[in-house]
Amino acid sequence: MNLKMIFSTVGKVVLIEAVLLVLPLITALVYTEWLVALSFGITIAVALAVFGLSKLFFSPETPIIFSKEGLVIVALAWLIMSVIGTLPFVISGDIPNFIDALFETVSGFTTTGASILTNVEGLSHGCLFWRSFTHWIGGMGVLVFVMAVSSKNNDRSIHILRAEMPGPTVDKLVPRARDTAKILYLIYIVLTVVLTVMLLFGGMPFFDSLIHAFGTAGTGGFGIKNNSLASYNDYCQWVIAIFMLIFGINFNLFYLVIVGKVTSAIKSEELWLYLIIVILSAGVITVNLMVTINETFGTALRLSVFQVASIISTTGFSTTDFNLWPTLSKAVLFVLMFIGGCAGSTAGGFKMSRVLLLGKNIHREFKRVLHPRNTSVVKVDGKRVDEKTISGLMSYLAVYVVCLFVIFLLISFEPFDVETNLTAAVTCFNNVGPGLSAVGPASNFAGYSIFSKIVLTLAMLLGRLEIYPILLTLLPTTWVKK
Amino acid sequence: MNLKMIFSTVGKVVLIEAVLLVLPLITALVYTEWLVALSFGITIAVALAVFGLSKLFFSPETPIIFSKEGLVIVALAWLIMSVIGTLPFVISGDIPNFIDALFETVSGFTTTGASILTNVEGLSHGCLFWRSFTHWIGGMGVLVFVMAVSSKNNDRSIHILRAEMPGPTVDKLVPRARDTAKILYLIYIVLTVVLTVMLLFGGMPFFDSLIHAFGTAGTGGFGIKNNSLASYNDYCQWVIAIFMLIFGINFNLFYLVIVGKVTSAIKSEELWLYLIIVILSAGVITVNLMVTINETFGTALRLSVFQVASIISTTGFSTTDFNLWPTLSKAVLFVLMFIGGCAGSTAGGFKMSRVLLLGKNIHREFKRVLHPRNTSVVKVDGKRVDEKTISGLMSYLAVYVVCLFVIFLLISFEPFDVETNLTAAVTCFNNVGPGLSAVGPASNFAGYSIFSKIVLTLAMLLGRLEIYPILLTLLPTTWVKK
Repeated sequence: MNLKMIFSTVGKVVLIEAVLLVLPLITALVYTEWLVALSFGITIAVALAVFGLSKLFFSPETPIIFSKEGLVIVALAWLIMSVIGTLPFVISGDIPNFIDALFETVSGFTTTGASILTNVEGLSHGCLFWRSFTHWIGGMGVLVFVMAVSSKNNDRSIHILRAEMPGPTVDKLVPRARDTAKILYLIYIVLTVVLTVMLLFGGMPFFDSLIHAFGTAGTGGFGIKNNSLASYNDYCQWVIAIFMLIFGINFNLFYLVIVGKVTSAIKSEELWLYLIIVILSAGVITVNLMVTINETFGTALRLSVFQVASIISTTGFSTTDFNLWPTLSKAVLFVLMFIGGCAGSTAGGFKMSRVLLLGKNIHREFKRVLHPRNTSVVKVDGKRVDEKTISGLMSYLAVYVVCLFVIFLLISFEPFDVETNLTAAVTCFNNVGPGLSAVGPASNFAGYSIFSKIVLTLAMLLGRLEIYPILLTLLPTTWVKK
Repeated sequence: MNLKMIFSTVGKVVLIEAVLLVLPLITALVYTEWLVALSFGITIAVALAVFGLSKLFFSPETPIIFSKEGLVIVALAWLIMSVIGTLPFVISGDIPNFIDALFETVSGFTTTGASILTNVEGLSHGCLFWRSFTHWIGGMGVLVFVMAVSSKNNDRSIHILRAEMPGPTVDKLVPRARDTAKILYLIYIVLTVVLTVMLLFGGMPFFDSLIHAFGTAGTGGFGIKNNSLASYNDYCQWVIAIFMLIFGINFNLFYLVIVGKVTSAIKSEELWLYLIIVILSAGVITVNLMVTINETFGTALRLSVFQVASIISTTGFSTTDFNLWPTLSKAVLFVLMFIGGCAGSTAGGFKMSRVLLLGKNIHREFKRVLHPRNTSVVKVDGKRVDEKTISGLMSYLAVYVVCLFVIFLLISFEPFDVETNLTAAVTCFNNVGPGLSAVGPASNFAGYSIFSKIVLTLAMLLGRLEIYPILLTLLPTTWVKK
């Protein structure tokens, strides 16, 4: 284990966080929230001190790391970043309880959007900004950011990129990992700006537009109103619905479009599966709402598209309390909570590309049962998927299922009904945000005990980093020298 | 496809069913239920006619079959056996609606024990006997029975054994498949007789003892009282709890004990995992009941052991309405519904040996993530498990998860809550019986629509035969010549 390299990189992440914390500090100053500004100032000082210590004690002799170190770096960086990000909430008194504030911060960074706040409208502007800005930072990944702004070029950094970016495989868009990171962040920034401008056109105030752009771009879901987005006009709701879907698409496709390879972008099988599932789900729910609770076609379509986009992209905004919807619509949303967006997007969940690969592998397995000597290969987008990727996917599914059951059992000490606890586990682990029943979109996680909040906080981190980094960092064998 | 061999074997199954139907016919005569006896008589006549037709038209030129034919034979045999088994209920008027009666019969043969009857005490003795006897037939498998009584020795019949017996691998106990089938049935019969006698000692009437012995041996769960086993004395409840656990153990272990290899039976890792899970679950629930609803230790232990044994063995008897239990206990039972008993037992579910293999493979996957060049093998009971078995298991998990989601979505047209529909799908697919909420142990499936009943009927068959036989028989490509 290259411990010095690990802590040095984690130090860099903390430095970046200190820089990023200047933005909410400015926001607090603009709104003359002096105490809040002070709390951001203190946090920045702490972050700089941590960075200084890492610089002092951990100067790496060699930058060489392996996949193991990549996993540990990402896990530790996210843990420390979350703890430091918690400080402004606690110091300013906006969320005085540390565990509550940690839950909220991790929910932000992991782009889950599950909240323990019963009255979000009571928060200061500075903290509201920071809360949603964590979505934006966590969406694309803070280590990807570190890499993008890093001056040195290090081929080994692909291990870090792989550990932080979601999905079964990570393609480098261009030969160098650093350039890939730069391109991804450029696309991310441009799309966020476009969204903010479009919301401003719709008459949304500047602060609100920025906050919701962060929440949408990172597919997070923190808002600034107690009823999420229900009070904004139809135009803004449609814009956010469409952008939630856009941020659920693999960013590689945007790059392909930019470099002129539009046809290969349009041919992406993952994209088609994503669109088909969105259209089918929204269609079923639209009809269900029209038939069962007599909504007009227009309203039913707007509500269903928004909620489907919000859940499948694992954002978690809502324009209605879908917990009051008929069972079929709720069942569809429940299943979408597992699936999530495309790999290489800011969305969470099991990921569309895994579902695609799973389906293709099941199809092959059927052929194998019928014809045991069959040796066909699985292809995605015309390219052969190697067996290692497939067996890796299958193991991931197994670990995913086991984790979900364990999380569910651990939070079942709570006196809520099974539906509440089950969907709480599912929605946190998949970084969606709202669940059903007592954790539905009109409610929140305030009622959970300290123990369950810690479990769910870990669940969010497990989900965002796709299980292995966190679990392996917690295993003692990882730290033992061979 | 050796179609003649397929239909000839299915014909034999129907003949066996005709013979087995004589038992409920006698029961009806003993209780002077003439109309019921007549309906069994008619059913026997129909079964014999079907057998006669198969004999007339499908005389196989060659007995050679491959795994594909094995799967189709099992699927078709179970479908036709179920349809014929439905007739007595319909003709006698005990369950006049055909779909309801089919649901009940399939629930019997698949040893699920989910019922659409709101008043089981109103059924005739003949039909009650047949209803529980289907558990006993389906538990070990009717094709295993055909093989055991078959005069000809056919090495190919291992394909049928594999398709009908649950679990990731099927070991032949002895070189010949026929002798294996005979040994299994002998153990099964002896254990059933012992259980019946022990229940008689407890003061249970003869008819009741027999019925509950069938339901326990097949891990089915149909009873003859509206409150399942709650009205019987503690002794009988303990006896049944212990026997439910016994019938959830791999029958191979009993064989090992019989031939004197007690130590290798006791060393079985699957057995230990099973026992550990039972003890842990019962322990957690006992404490939970004592703390939350102030039960005494004795009562809490009796209730928890019984319910845990009933759910993990996928039997489905109950001695209390566990739907009223605290959430933690319900959550534990919910998770047990998925796991099920050991492979090679009469229990359903995902199977203990698969859970064991999954856990070991996850452990290996962790090592691989840390050390990519690691090439360790997975061992169970000291023996190496080949990679084909592991990749087969992983595919099975994937298909299992997909099937469960599809079944859940299909029955979500129902106006019940999400918990009801989800646990209905889980309990039918895993052949358990009761679920939670509106399909809890005090309720039943009578409220579901015809469409959902058909879906759940298929789910029970999918679960009992472990998915592939039914799905492949429904695929057109299976029937196309290559």
